[in-house]
Amino acid sequence: MTLMNPKIKKRLYDIVFKSETKEGKAFDIILIFVILANSLLVMAESVEGISATYGMGIKVFEWIFVIVFTFEYIFRVFLAHKKSTYIVSFFGIIDLLAILPAFFALVFPSIRFLVVIRIFRLLRIFSILKMGRYMDESKRLMTALKASKPKITVFLFTIFFIVMMVGAMMYIIEGPGNGFKNIPESMYWAIVTVSTVGYGDISPQTPLGKLISSLLMIVAYGIIAVPTGIISQEIIQTSKSKIKTKKCSYCHAMAHTKEDQFCAKCGRALST
Amino acid sequence: MTLMNPKIKKRLYDIVFKSETKEGKAFDIILIFVILANSLLVMAESVEGISATYGMGIKVFEWIFVIVFTFEYIFRVFLAHKKSTYIVSFFGIIDLLAILPAFFALVFPSIRFLVVIRIFRLLRIFSILKMGRYMDESKRLMTALKASKPKITVFLFTIFFIVMMVGAMMYIIEGPGNGFKNIPESMYWAIVTVSTVGYGDISPQTPLGKLISSLLMIVAYGIIAVPTGIISQEIIQTSKSKIKTKKCSYCHAMAHTKEDQFCAKCGRALST
Amino acid sequence: MTLMNPKIKKRLYDIVFKSETKEGKAFDIILIFVILANSLLVMAESVEGISATYGMGIKVFEWIFVIVFTFEYIFRVFLAHKKSTYIVSFFGIIDLLAILPAFFALVFPSIRFLVVIRIFRLLRIFSILKMGRYMDESKRLMTALKASKPKITVFLFTIFFIVMMVGAMMYIIEGPGNGFKNIPESMYWAIVTVSTVGYGDISPQTPLGKLISSLLMIVAYGIIAVPTGIISQEIIQTSKSKIKTKKCSYCHAMAHTKEDQFCAKCGRALST
Amino acid sequence: MTLMNPKIKKRLYDIVFKSETKEGKAFDIILIFVILANSLLVMAESVEGISATYGMGIKVFEWIFVIVFTFEYIFRVFLAHKKSTYIVSFFGIIDLLAILPAFFALVFPSIRFLVVIRIFRLLRIFSILKMGRYMDESKRLMTALKASKPKITVFLFTIFFIVMMVGAMMYIIEGPGNGFKNIPESMYWAIVTVSTVGYGDISPQTPLGKLISSLLMIVAYGIIAVPTGIISQEIIQTSKSKIKTKKCSYCHAMAHTKEDQFCAKCGRALST
Repeated sequence: MTLMNPKIKKRLYDIVFKSETKEGKAFDIILIFVILANSLLVMAESVEGISATYGMGIKVFEWIFVIVFTFEYIFRVFLAHKKSTYIVSFFGIIDLLAILPAFFALVFPSIRFLVVIRIFRLLRIFSILKMGRYMDESKRLMTALKASKPKITVFLFTIFFIVMMVGAMMYIIEGPGNGFKNIPESMYWAIVTVSTVGYGDISPQTPLGKLISSLLMIVAYGIIAVPTGIISQEIIQTSKSKIKTKKCSYCHAMAHTKEDQFCAKCGRALST
Repeated sequence: MTLMNPKIKKRLYDIVFKSETKEGKAFDIILIFVILANSLLVMAESVEGISATYGMGIKVFEWIFVIVFTFEYIFRVFLAHKKSTYIVSFFGIIDLLAILPAFFALVFPSIRFLVVIRIFRLLRIFSILKMGRYMDESKRLMTALKASKPKITVFLFTIFFIVMMVGAMMYIIEGPGNGFKNIPESMYWAIVTVSTVGYGDISPQTPLGKLISSLLMIVAYGIIAVPTGIISQEIIQTSKSKIKTKKCSYCHAMAHTKEDQFCAKCGRALST
Repeated sequence: MTLMNPKIKKRLYDIVFKSETKEGKAFDIILIFVILANSLLVMAESVEGISATYGMGIKVFEWIFVIVFTFEYIFRVFLAHKKSTYIVSFFGIIDLLAILPAFFALVFPSIRFLVVIRIFRLLRIFSILKMGRYMDESKRLMTALKASKPKITVFLFTIFFIVMMVGAMMYIIEGPGNGFKNIPESMYWAIVTVSTVGYGDISPQTPLGKLISSLLMIVAYGIIAVPTGIISQEIIQTSKSKIKTKKCSYCHAMAHTKEDQFCAKCGRALST
Repeated sequence: MTLMNPKIKKRLYDIVFKSETKEGKAFDIILIFVILANSLLVMAESVEGISATYGMGIKVFEWIFVIVFTFEYIFRVFLAHKKSTYIVSFFGIIDLLAILPAFFALVFPSIRFLVVIRIFRLLRIFSILKMGRYMDESKRLMTALKASKPKITVFLFTIFFIVMMVGAMMYIIEGPGNGFKNIPESMYWAIVTVSTVGYGDISPQTPLGKLISSLLMIVAYGIIAVPTGIISQEIIQTSKSKIKTKKCSYCHAMAHTKEDQFCAKCGRALST
């Protein structure tokens, strides 16, 4: 495709797909604002009162967003080094799903509500999050979460088995008559309970069911405490480096606690 | 305005607006008690049974409070160095809003219920909180909260996006028929769920909706753990200095608790 | 009163009121079991099905407990050094309230349900808790809770003001028509929400009410995190002494970390 | 019993009952997948829509599982060194209960729903959990939980007494008319409240009941914080050893992280 000077194409690619350059950052920020505005529009349209009053205006703006997103999509496909890679990538699919429903709805009005999918373009924010001043903190949080991944896996595993068994138990005890229609439904109830959400759409009616629920709730105390403990520990660990405040006057390394007498980096004596 | 000796005016200003002097503190404490008494009165009046029985007495006391607050407001305007600064300040507006509804209600009885606004004068308590014996602790808590501000911003940001996307998803899945009337309503449901409040006024009805809710609740575990971890870490950090406070006068090692009698580093006696 | 040899009376006093002697401990343990048995009986009686079937047996046992408690009360009054001190003490009043309703119910059957008060004799367990093998742990927990008292006071204070103001705000916004009948009721709702209990007996109906509730729930995250952080920190601090595992071979003091080179108690060098 | 070469029997025993050998591990993994498949089948069957459509297929698979489990049970009994020990062991009983209902249901169709018990064979997963790559993390979590056992006992004890007394109090205040039918029911409500689950199936109606509930909810803050604090502390302690792992070969100081190159105590180079 020689429609465009390769150098210009390369530059446009850097702007649209990357955020190292000044123009790339500007593009990202504008894109986020367009996506946010679009999301607010989708939200507003879903409210009956608003869509009834401002229906026309909303429709106009909606099509503006659809056209902008369509051009952006075509442009991205055009700029991508390997078109297929972008098209089947996570964001490539999201970008396509964001525009398709609007066009399909012209033919099949019944699927109009699917335009809501456009809201998921918000996920792009996470690809942009890496820039900006909050990058450090979000990285720190991410590190803490990643470090606790094996512990969390064991935790989720345990939850799953508790929920499965308590669900089956309650299905036998309470039965379909009391809202525990089937085991998946009972498991939903168990999760609602053990997470302490407690909608109350399903709740135990028999004395034995109430006793088991009570035990599950007390177990929930411990269960809630585990991820909190895990993440607290990781956050404390990740931020430990902040406590180290003694600086080596030779190599300027900061990683020293008050008790340290020699620099751990260059071995020279630390001044008190 | 030469209605008053500037020196007296200055002194009155210190009493009314500041709390360094003895009289200033006394004024603040009296004011807090008047505001609290007024709040209890407003609360009592809102209860039908009480307002029916003691209606007359409540009305009398209410006007006493309104008159006191009105005089206080006029006095504050009079004393303020720059009147406009006080009038448009946060507390200036609250102070005015606390008295206006009572007078307007004389003309438009239908807005009588707005007298409740007076309860917000309680906010003044926070401007006074800085004095007194709990100042240290509240400052420590504030420091902990402030230090974790960037982490909390990232956290709130993440919550907002999760809520927005889960809300949109559930609006598509459950739809207006099952209580998910529009996206803002769905987002309200998502917050009720992810915060584990779980009123149950809206709850998923379809199997897919229940599955996604269950996943959201399990994610909620991690989400709750993050602010707890952050704040725990900050509180632990802020109070670290309390642990080891005794310093060896020879080798200057700090790692001693109050009970230690000899330096753990050089073995010399610690002075008490 | 010379009804009894003073020496015997002194010994009986030690058995009934104290728990240092072997007999005193035995008395306490028997008393706890009697109180527990009595509590289970009161619980069983409150269940309609059980009281209908075993009514006669329950009545018999109930009177046995009442008579035992009555004799115990008379005995305690008789043994107490200063009768009035025991009678007006916290446990003196509880002990009396535990027996009175049963006798009064003979004359006024309508107050029969007050016999439930007997269950509060369970509080005696806390006066006995100080003995036994879990004393250490409960003391440790108590120390942690006591140490965090000022922080917790500030915390409760803050909760109270948030609840009061959000309650007033929601009373204005939602009003009696939507279940927010009066300000105390609104405050009850605010506590139900901020503690993430969320019964759903009262829940916001208006969009603005839902928005403010959502904000309150997000604030609740931070609010829950604070006591958790405080108590975590105190528990960590209280148990810090456990980390110290190096023992002085001279004075056997354990309070040394791995880095310590000299005993903090006697000043002698620690062996590695 | 000389039905089998003792050496072969011994080998089969190691495969079926232990998981040290390669074949033993394979057997365990296959068993877990069979149990999981069976559990999913039981879950699917409980859903009316699915059992109506695929009834025949489900029935066939169910009997396959029952037959497999029956053969496994007979095999285990045959292989066990002391048959009676296996039969009365926890897993022996579960294994038997997993197959009995299916056979009994042939005679008494009304107990068919008891086949759900088969789901509890999932508990076997915990006997296998000790192998595999997550063993370390689950052991670490277990250690943390075990270490905090005495603290948790005191905690559960306290909860039990609070629940019992608040339950009795609310039974007097609210009474059967407001859903607090009896003391056990009131205690169930107290647990639902103090664990912040809050179904709302029972909720206080009287002003005094609401006041006491509010106090209970605020107490709940502290109560939730305690296990979180305990477990956080244990997790932090258990993972302490991970932080500083490098030892100075001269002065034997341990306080070095992986990045440190010189001893912070004596200044000599650390070996890598």
